Amino acid sequence: MKPFKMASREYRETDTLIEIKTTAQPVVIGEGHCTIIAGPCAVENQESYIEMAKFLQAVGVHILRGGLFKPRTSPYSFKGLGGPGIDIIQEARRVTGLPVATEIMDVRDLDLLYENTDILQVGSRNMQNFSLLQEMGKVDKPILLKRGLSATIEEWLLAAEYILNGGNEKVILCERGIRTFEPYTRNTADIGAIPLIKHLSHLPIIVDPSHATGKWYMVAPVARAAIAAGADGIMVEVHQDPDKALSDGKQSLTPDNFRKMVKEIKDLARLGQKQVGGYYNGKST
Amino acid sequence: MKPFKMASREYRETDTLIEIKTTAQPVVIGEGHCTIIAGPCAVENQESYIEMAKFLQAVGVHILRGGLFKPRTSPYSFKGLGGPGIDIIQEARRVTGLPVATEIMDVRDLDLLYENTDILQVGSRNMQNFSLLQEMGKVDKPILLKRGLSATIEEWLLAAEYILNGGNEKVILCERGIRTFEPYTRNTADIGAIPLIKHLSHLPIIVDPSHATGKWYMVAPVARAAIAAGADGIMVEVHQDPDKALSDGKQSLTPDNFRKMVKEIKDLARLGQKQVGGYYNGKST
Amino acid sequence: MKPFKMASREYRETDTLIEIKTTAQPVVIGEGHCTIIAGPCAVENQESYIEMAKFLQAVGVHILRGGLFKPRTSPYSFKGLGGPGIDIIQEARRVTGLPVATEIMDVRDLDLLYENTDILQVGSRNMQNFSLLQEMGKVDKPILLKRGLSATIEEWLLAAEYILNGGNEKVILCERGIRTFEPYTRNTADIGAIPLIKHLSHLPIIVDPSHATGKWYMVAPVARAAIAAGADGIMVEVHQDPDKALSDGKQSLTPDNFRKMVKEIKDLARLGQKQVGGYYNGKST
Amino acid sequence: MKPFKMASREYRETDTLIEIKTTAQPVVIGEGHCTIIAGPCAVENQESYIEMAKFLQAVGVHILRGGLFKPRTSPYSFKGLGGPGIDIIQEARRVTGLPVATEIMDVRDLDLLYENTDILQVGSRNMQNFSLLQEMGKVDKPILLKRGLSATIEEWLLAAEYILNGGNEKVILCERGIRTFEPYTRNTADIGAIPLIKHLSHLPIIVDPSHATGKWYMVAPVARAAIAAGADGIMVEVHQDPDKALSDGKQSLTPDNFRKMVKEIKDLARLGQKQVGGYYNGKST
Repeated sequence: MKPFKMASREYRETDTLIEIKTTAQPVVIGEGHCTIIAGPCAVENQESYIEMAKFLQAVGVHILRGGLFKPRTSPYSFKGLGGPGIDIIQEARRVTGLPVATEIMDVRDLDLLYENTDILQVGSRNMQNFSLLQEMGKVDKPILLKRGLSATIEEWLLAAEYILNGGNEKVILCERGIRTFEPYTRNTADIGAIPLIKHLSHLPIIVDPSHATGKWYMVAPVARAAIAAGADGIMVEVHQDPDKALSDGKQSLTPDNFRKMVKEIKDLARLGQKQVGGYYNGKST
Repeated sequence: MKPFKMASREYRETDTLIEIKTTAQPVVIGEGHCTIIAGPCAVENQESYIEMAKFLQAVGVHILRGGLFKPRTSPYSFKGLGGPGIDIIQEARRVTGLPVATEIMDVRDLDLLYENTDILQVGSRNMQNFSLLQEMGKVDKPILLKRGLSATIEEWLLAAEYILNGGNEKVILCERGIRTFEPYTRNTADIGAIPLIKHLSHLPIIVDPSHATGKWYMVAPVARAAIAAGADGIMVEVHQDPDKALSDGKQSLTPDNFRKMVKEIKDLARLGQKQVGGYYNGKST
Repeated sequence: MKPFKMASREYRETDTLIEIKTTAQPVVIGEGHCTIIAGPCAVENQESYIEMAKFLQAVGVHILRGGLFKPRTSPYSFKGLGGPGIDIIQEARRVTGLPVATEIMDVRDLDLLYENTDILQVGSRNMQNFSLLQEMGKVDKPILLKRGLSATIEEWLLAAEYILNGGNEKVILCERGIRTFEPYTRNTADIGAIPLIKHLSHLPIIVDPSHATGKWYMVAPVARAAIAAGADGIMVEVHQDPDKALSDGKQSLTPDNFRKMVKEIKDLARLGQKQVGGYYNGKST
Repeated sequence: MKPFKMASREYRETDTLIEIKTTAQPVVIGEGHCTIIAGPCAVENQESYIEMAKFLQAVGVHILRGGLFKPRTSPYSFKGLGGPGIDIIQEARRVTGLPVATEIMDVRDLDLLYENTDILQVGSRNMQNFSLLQEMGKVDKPILLKRGLSATIEEWLLAAEYILNGGNEKVILCERGIRTFEPYTRNTADIGAIPLIKHLSHLPIIVDPSHATGKWYMVAPVARAAIAAGADGIMVEVHQDPDKALSDGKQSLTPDNFRKMVKEIKDLARLGQKQVGGYYNGKST
């Protein structure tokens, strides 16, 4: 018997579709759609973030990454702008009309982030931060739940279960690579997780090929693999000047490479009969 | 500095293309081509194998799997027909005109297999059987080198280096899933290995989604992911009646599911501008 | 160059010794001492906990485990008594005079736990809960920092660095098994971590053989291995009736087996010239 | 139901004891004994090997390592002296009266090695070289079966089962570290494997702390841990001048450090009521 209930296919036969409200067109994440989330690893300053947001909108991105609180392995690394960055995110939403996804690391930041973002992201290192998961269950906002560094599929779905069981049905799973013995890459993209999650659960699953690989030249191939395997979208790091990024530069795409990848992803989505952009009622980009 | 030399991009700029001679049209494995290898896990008897071979030929498969010597974890499992199965393989080659790939587990079987097969396969458990690798270096036959259960990319390329350095340039790498902490699947398909190998080496790389997942319903999605990520082909297990297979039934596709998958693979290959079938001089199937 | 600073041997040559104040004799954790922490996985009710506490005191245990908040993979599992259990812990401290270690899972519980426990434990799943680590850095209490499920040695020391860098020098590292491919055991005890940590850092390191193995019959051998390898102590789960434990029964020792193990541990500690009990100024039990 | 039969405790209740015949006193490997195997990683030349052999004999080592065929990840590394080194091993046996253990990598070397060595070692990379295992089953010599780099306990016992089932009951298991995500050490010593194997099987188990760690300063602590956990012996690399060793220098002990470690091991063995040296009928060194 499976230990997760509300996250299982048996509990809910139809695929969960999650609608993100925006000032522009609504975005839908889930089976049959292909949603592209992109942005720099961290919001660094207003000028570069707004410039990037406009570029991403023009290329056809549906949701912006807007990292303010960055979990960093070392206490000496750049940890994000934190609360003061909220205004920058607000400006990006205003200018582009696109929704923004932001990581939450501390339950005490919930009020601030709830008011100012569209998707709350629970990072890999917090996938089993059960206090945080319980708070996410009480919130009326989509939660992007990244897979833990070495979380099994079952543990991941049980983490989702904490949120579902708390009362929030809007959980988006995000595969971001798992930890293996391989030293060459940052993580190992577990593409098999996509058909497995689709088999076991009704929840949407997207893939983050940037963290899953750690190398920019692997991002586009792994993103393509994700869509071909049936993922409902991708989340990708883009930076104007990856070499100067305050974090994750090595795995960030340049705008040019990103634009090329988006074209490939859209072609694959169409081949797989996924609606690009994820708009309801048929209007695809 | 990289420890492998002859396997590196620096040593050879152009991608290695390996031609397999057959009584029908030649098959080419390597960049720009998409080659499909398929068959039952093990040759079980003449009637079912020939029937399967004809089906696979009709569906457009380019190379047959023809397992006679099966490495089995337990001494009590079916270990394949061994030498006496050679005649069945010969009959399949005669009837279909297709080349056959067979695993070699023991240097003492080399003469027998050399005469009767088209591709020699070195299995995962023998990836660092250096005596066997050295013999493979002396042979004028393509070698299909499967990645070890927990071999790093570097160790895998060094295993290829043993063969290249011994004088045989015809090495085909085959990703077949790596061992991780995940208990749900047999192995974890390392799709990121494809762009990584393409970055580091000129050798062809194909993917075995059957062993990489261990579950039949994950085979087609992972096969599609492989081609979308840039793999030069796939190797898949098919069985008339998976439930009655003498080995690997759970991960074998039925003929119907296999046919469906082949169509998807061909569509993806065309989208990626790969020549389906891998024939030289432009005639694609 | 190593990314951790204050946790390194270079920063501090002499081994860190941490004194835990108790109403009985002081306990010291660190090089040259052998400290035994024990108790049930979770405090279940007052009667059984006090009975166990008295038994552990009689056997010569130095610190009690007193789990109130239990991180559980499934939302449907027993999660501990929580705040209301505080009185039970207080009673155990009063009756035995022994210090108590308790896990903290949520920064909002800090005031409650700070007042009522002697050691704050950060669990494996929170090893990279950086908000929690930062709060631990501001506290004047020893922090027992368990290694994450798949944390590298470097990541573990960087988590310690968050606490040290925040101003709290009292960090005790606890190896509790890492996640590997092995399905037979819950985790794999990384005994090599002991000499490695001793080589790289001045911080004390203890071992939790209960979580590291998940099987009661492996607990005593791995506890002995830990001390023989140079660990500064062990933390072990004991339960009056393991089959009826509300959590972790399979890895809990019975009182009889625990008593036997304590004798072995003391013999090994003496052989390794460690002061059993860790009392300052020479009085060993 | 367990898949291994002859290797299981159920098949044979009493622990298997394996006697190695020597020109000096017989050596016994198995429960209740503590056997020390040592020597350089590879036999490099006669002078240094004989000198080392005499030193090891004087220190109280029971069996010599005598590596002639070395499995090396790269084809460009020193692969051992091979067949021509046999005379050196013979001379060491003659001079010291000690038995010698040698790795066999190729079934075609069996005749040569059978005549000239006392224990045949099957290395990690060949743990699932089933052709080799089958040959080992036909031989009347003790087989030292190292655990594969990422072999589960069950796979390891099934590899032993191949040998037992072939007719050879003299199998010695050797834990030598498993592959994990940790980059700091070569492998992760799985000390828990000792009580687990003792629980599941009647076969002797020893530990190789040199390969299990890859760092000389971790060798003695892990060797002590092994004996404290119940291992029946250790196998250690020693070299006159580790910095100049042709292989594995970083993990080799100097003669001085080795002598120190042997003393610690003997003390621990006595504490655990193991007979040091493993001589029958009570005469311990």
